[in-house]
Amino acid sequence: MSYATVDLTPTPEDKFTFGLWTVGWQARDPFGDPTREPMDPVLAAEKLGELGAYGVTLHDDDLLSPLLTGDEREAAISRFEKAVDAAGLKIPMITTNLFTHPVFKDGAFTSNSRDVRRYALAKVRRNLDLAARFGATTYVLWGGREGSESDAAKDVRAALDRYAEGLDALCDYIVSQGYDIRLAIEPKPNEPRGDILLPTIGHALGLIDRLQHSEMVGLNPEVGHEQMAGLNMVHGVAQALWAGKLFHIDLNGQRGPKYDQDLVFGHGDLLNAFFLVDLLETSGYAGMRHFDYKPARTEDSEGVWRSAAANMSTYLMLKQRAAEFRADPDVQAAMTAAGVDSLRQPTLNPGETVADLPAITEVDVEGLVRGYPFVNINELAIEHLMGFRG
Amino acid sequence: MSYATVDLTPTPEDKFTFGLWTVGWQARDPFGDPTREPMDPVLAAEKLGELGAYGVTLHDDDLLSPLLTGDEREAAISRFEKAVDAAGLKIPMITTNLFTHPVFKDGAFTSNSRDVRRYALAKVRRNLDLAARFGATTYVLWGGREGSESDAAKDVRAALDRYAEGLDALCDYIVSQGYDIRLAIEPKPNEPRGDILLPTIGHALGLIDRLQHSEMVGLNPEVGHEQMAGLNMVHGVAQALWAGKLFHIDLNGQRGPKYDQDLVFGHGDLLNAFFLVDLLETSGYAGMRHFDYKPARTEDSEGVWRSAAANMSTYLMLKQRAAEFRADPDVQAAMTAAGVDSLRQPTLNPGETVADLPAITEVDVEGLVRGYPFVNINELAIEHLMGFRG
Amino acid sequence: MSYATVDLTPTPEDKFTFGLWTVGWQARDPFGDPTREPMDPVLAAEKLGELGAYGVTLHDDDLLSPLLTGDEREAAISRFEKAVDAAGLKIPMITTNLFTHPVFKDGAFTSNSRDVRRYALAKVRRNLDLAARFGATTYVLWGGREGSESDAAKDVRAALDRYAEGLDALCDYIVSQGYDIRLAIEPKPNEPRGDILLPTIGHALGLIDRLQHSEMVGLNPEVGHEQMAGLNMVHGVAQALWAGKLFHIDLNGQRGPKYDQDLVFGHGDLLNAFFLVDLLETSGYAGMRHFDYKPARTEDSEGVWRSAAANMSTYLMLKQRAAEFRADPDVQAAMTAAGVDSLRQPTLNPGETVADLPAITEVDVEGLVRGYPFVNINELAIEHLMGFRG
Amino acid sequence: MSYATVDLTPTPEDKFTFGLWTVGWQARDPFGDPTREPMDPVLAAEKLGELGAYGVTLHDDDLLSPLLTGDEREAAISRFEKAVDAAGLKIPMITTNLFTHPVFKDGAFTSNSRDVRRYALAKVRRNLDLAARFGATTYVLWGGREGSESDAAKDVRAALDRYAEGLDALCDYIVSQGYDIRLAIEPKPNEPRGDILLPTIGHALGLIDRLQHSEMVGLNPEVGHEQMAGLNMVHGVAQALWAGKLFHIDLNGQRGPKYDQDLVFGHGDLLNAFFLVDLLETSGYAGMRHFDYKPARTEDSEGVWRSAAANMSTYLMLKQRAAEFRADPDVQAAMTAAGVDSLRQPTLNPGETVADLPAITEVDVEGLVRGYPFVNINELAIEHLMGFRG
Repeated sequence: MSYATVDLTPTPEDKFTFGLWTVGWQARDPFGDPTREPMDPVLAAEKLGELGAYGVTLHDDDLLSPLLTGDEREAAISRFEKAVDAAGLKIPMITTNLFTHPVFKDGAFTSNSRDVRRYALAKVRRNLDLAARFGATTYVLWGGREGSESDAAKDVRAALDRYAEGLDALCDYIVSQGYDIRLAIEPKPNEPRGDILLPTIGHALGLIDRLQHSEMVGLNPEVGHEQMAGLNMVHGVAQALWAGKLFHIDLNGQRGPKYDQDLVFGHGDLLNAFFLVDLLETSGYAGMRHFDYKPARTEDSEGVWRSAAANMSTYLMLKQRAAEFRADPDVQAAMTAAGVDSLRQPTLNPGETVADLPAITEVDVEGLVRGYPFVNINELAIEHLMGFRG
Repeated sequence: MSYATVDLTPTPEDKFTFGLWTVGWQARDPFGDPTREPMDPVLAAEKLGELGAYGVTLHDDDLLSPLLTGDEREAAISRFEKAVDAAGLKIPMITTNLFTHPVFKDGAFTSNSRDVRRYALAKVRRNLDLAARFGATTYVLWGGREGSESDAAKDVRAALDRYAEGLDALCDYIVSQGYDIRLAIEPKPNEPRGDILLPTIGHALGLIDRLQHSEMVGLNPEVGHEQMAGLNMVHGVAQALWAGKLFHIDLNGQRGPKYDQDLVFGHGDLLNAFFLVDLLETSGYAGMRHFDYKPARTEDSEGVWRSAAANMSTYLMLKQRAAEFRADPDVQAAMTAAGVDSLRQPTLNPGETVADLPAITEVDVEGLVRGYPFVNINELAIEHLMGFRG
Repeated sequence: MSYATVDLTPTPEDKFTFGLWTVGWQARDPFGDPTREPMDPVLAAEKLGELGAYGVTLHDDDLLSPLLTGDEREAAISRFEKAVDAAGLKIPMITTNLFTHPVFKDGAFTSNSRDVRRYALAKVRRNLDLAARFGATTYVLWGGREGSESDAAKDVRAALDRYAEGLDALCDYIVSQGYDIRLAIEPKPNEPRGDILLPTIGHALGLIDRLQHSEMVGLNPEVGHEQMAGLNMVHGVAQALWAGKLFHIDLNGQRGPKYDQDLVFGHGDLLNAFFLVDLLETSGYAGMRHFDYKPARTEDSEGVWRSAAANMSTYLMLKQRAAEFRADPDVQAAMTAAGVDSLRQPTLNPGETVADLPAITEVDVEGLVRGYPFVNINELAIEHLMGFRG
Repeated sequence: MSYATVDLTPTPEDKFTFGLWTVGWQARDPFGDPTREPMDPVLAAEKLGELGAYGVTLHDDDLLSPLLTGDEREAAISRFEKAVDAAGLKIPMITTNLFTHPVFKDGAFTSNSRDVRRYALAKVRRNLDLAARFGATTYVLWGGREGSESDAAKDVRAALDRYAEGLDALCDYIVSQGYDIRLAIEPKPNEPRGDILLPTIGHALGLIDRLQHSEMVGLNPEVGHEQMAGLNMVHGVAQALWAGKLFHIDLNGQRGPKYDQDLVFGHGDLLNAFFLVDLLETSGYAGMRHFDYKPARTEDSEGVWRSAAANMSTYLMLKQRAAEFRADPDVQAAMTAAGVDSLRQPTLNPGETVADLPAITEVDVEGLVRGYPFVNINELAIEHLMGFRG
């Protein structure tokens, strides 16, 4: 098997999307000035189209200054729409920048300033209208500034009240306008705040279930964000799928609990990425494969596009290896030996209750002890991942 | 102010409880043999009573071998009941050991072996009966073995189905028996499994909301477990309270993401412990203050009891400092200056919708930028915590 | 004991120093624009003098643009010198900015570009001349860009050769100029690079010992940097002292492995900060107590100065509590009981060798097992830290 | 390319070794009883020989009870020697158990009890004699109990004095006996102690350089131990090689900062493992490839041997992929483009000093800014690792 005989060229059917802010990142970091020029969104659309992406996504402020109004605003929007169309792209998701401007320094929906909270909702409202115009059906909300550095600074229960109020009010607005849009919350544990509210997939689920329009609100988990808390992305996404809440996903790379790295997908924990692709491809997930990465600050503009392409080719390589893994009879036999499939069988018989179970003193517990050859399955996965069993 | 003039002697009104497995820990660790003898549960009850605890808690196997039956079992139980009574203690919570025996090596409710899953439910059932007899109204479930080391080894969605099935079936049993018992799930991110299902407060909330008897199931968060994922315990407990799900709490100490340390409460992140006590004492939480700690392996039996007492005295010291903090007019002024209270005010006016908000182009956004003196509040907290403003 | 009766006003004797870049931080972060205006270094000097600091420190570029030359440069320098003098401050340490400009994006001394490496050395040389003029005797080197995100991108052994070459060459220069200056390396594990070379105190020691002028090179450990790797700052500083290499120290706060927080000293792990102050004050360390923190992005200019003051007052509070702890006879008795002091006694008798030790089969090993009441000492520390035994 | 055409069968030339305690681990963990029977060391030797290992390693107590003396001891030793010979194995390294017995609960060389320190040295002495008899030339010292949970409990500077005293005394003994043995320190950040002394490769280097026989003491770094501190194993090993101190290496897998997992090599951070093998194979490292892993607690005895084999086959797969990576002209071109090789060129010309460098005001700094295509190299590495360019 070689690179030449396998087609790793992305096509729109792969549903690969990129944020304008990813390839357009100017590479300013906490200790350094930008190393790249601002990128025209039109250029981004053209290049992403050439590379085989399905779509492009954006924050309101990625495309236009919030200060633009009237004809100027309309001109900027329609210029971008034309470029997107010309590139054969879609705009399946957009989102709001509620973090760059100093006004949001203590948060947006949960700022201790009520005026800021109101401004934030209005900023989302304006961009929901744009989402509808673009045909975007997913609207992501990353609350990166909703949090605190001191436990005395934020009444978390009040903050969750305001968070829920904001989400409910936005859902009301969407319904009132007849928009075909669902909200997707993007959890993150910290950075830029010391502790961010809704730090993980789980915490976001715990909020969503208490919303008035909980059916309209789901998740946009990000690989690196879960891994910043040392959590397993595959487990988290599986729980989101189980809950019917995987509305969107952010793919990238991270090397454990440290600052948010936004590496190319697969360039962090490769084995976890392998199983994530396996899960997405076998679960029936029909949504976008959205790359929320940053081209390394050391790259020039050629490196920007090569790194964008690397996300897609890594995904396709992982997809192929995962398919080979699932198709291998040895893997299937190992799965059976380890009881993986039998977990799908209910624990109780139809109609049986806990009261009906035999007393534990009647069970030969030693006889229930058995080996589970999990290491073998994992080794088979690595052999497939490394192309030694294709 | 001095130690002498403040009464830091615990009383039953403080609702301090300890597990038999805490003071009774023999100090066996992954690299070392036990350093202490097994402890008679009767001695534990006597000593905890003397120290001022409210109650004692236990796993089934802490008290009696699962193999005991009939009269032997009854004798062991009633001997313990008498000791607890004599010590003036209650048994407000009990739990099941679903992790020590090799049969549970791949989990209990989510083991890949159906027979093991059935055995696990029967083991809980038997101990629920004991809980009812003891008058325990909270039943904790720590699923420490529910997880995996390889992402190929466990179908997480199937595992969550089984987890939910098990919890639903147990709730049915409780209802059928007329027991006054609620279940409390204890999340943990890892150890002894590489990744444990329901790794945080949030993930457990996300499961609970999908149960048939979700009103009967809540949380037992543990300080160290949340901090093992680098998460803020105060934020997590606040979300649990917000969701109406703080049924019980495990207090101890941990120094960041590493193995589960189970230090004395306050002996890890002291500042976070201060705010946690503040939250518990001001939120109306009426439940137990349960110490799930381990006396250091280096301690002898005298050290065991001193360390047990240290949990309670640290709690009481923090409670006093937190009360002083809240009562200080300077703190209240700083809170107001930082807008902490104003977050309780809804963002929208009564009857107002997002559509009614002014356009962002009409808002003087620069005029909304203000300072939030959070560092000042935090410094005031430290001054109080350190006894410099009492 | 109350705030009023204890003097927590800092004086120059306390040797508190601040970087211009700390109080002057404009609060730009990876996701947000600046929230504060640039600060005139003259104002910084004035205010720090008023607050009781001993000195001010700086990067070359904090004070003047690298492009300034001739009279303009001289004017900027002498204006600052006058302000420092007028404020009664010293300039005990300065350092080089080898990280903000894009030229350093792959490092300075270890950039893959030789021209950049040469430029970096020349930039340090120019600023060493300024250090000598200012009377600074410590010159800090933080190699924040010396590192990589891909293990293929940097030949680490070659990089260490270049690192050592650069340090040796700079020491040669210092000697040749007759400057009274020592170099202090500041380790950091990551951010802004994925992995930074010399990630901890230990790794820097391992490099220093292989330098030609190793006696001229020591350490500037930073609280938060060690804690970002989950390491114990007190242990690390003790090893640096043991090695005779604690040339300088950066005090601040951090809450575990995450992005570099640069909180106020003590606002992270308070208990570790208590023992760090105890170590510094009892070890004979005569150097600066340098606060390398960032005023939270949410603070306005008043908050900047309050947060600067908070670093010093927290240090002084901790110093007082540590002194009380050391003076307490109960603490001394507990230390003795735990054998803390006896560790200072050599293991072998004078002239004794390992060959002289009795065979282990002749030793009553069970008789050597004893308890070490460490938890008691720790609880006493917390009682002192919280002001309950003063 | 397929599994069949590449020979991944280990041979003694591969220098693969295993500890008796790895395959023999009974799978007792902090929350669970053993799941496997004790393993006869003779069986371990036989099976490892069959699997293609080069050698076997051991702690003193893995082989025989410390209480055995005289003929019984000799019989146990010679029985094992015969089995090792029969299996065609060597014993290239042995080590001491200074952690399981309660006597070591506060450490061995740095215990607060002087009697314990003396006992520890004697225990090592006895086993050094055995090392010499076995022909082992490397003696590993893992100081897992040398540390503390409270910063008040251990005078770290005194502890480092005792650590150094112990190592010096042992070197004296080795020299006095004419043994051909070098010591290798194995760093670890924590577990079973809250903080372990010499937590990383760097800290151990910092101690070694201050020993009287520093040339006899080097390192035994372990993959998982460095990764428990979030550090890059490849960087650490490169620094150890650079310092001439890589005496031995422990290969296994770990998934970030959490408890010590001891997974199969490659089953943690696969990409880092790829570059580690690349480094070992290209650096001229001639020592053992020692697997210090634990067969998962869920495995039965068949799984034990499959997991042992998996360590070796994963190493060989990585070795092959790394060779293909290095041989690929595209990779070499990318390395050149990124300046990787040019870092080996000294920064200064022969005879040049820092004083000779041009002033920075004479340098066109903007002209020095360039792109470094590191992402491309990393993507090429992943393509090779996954078998897409072989």
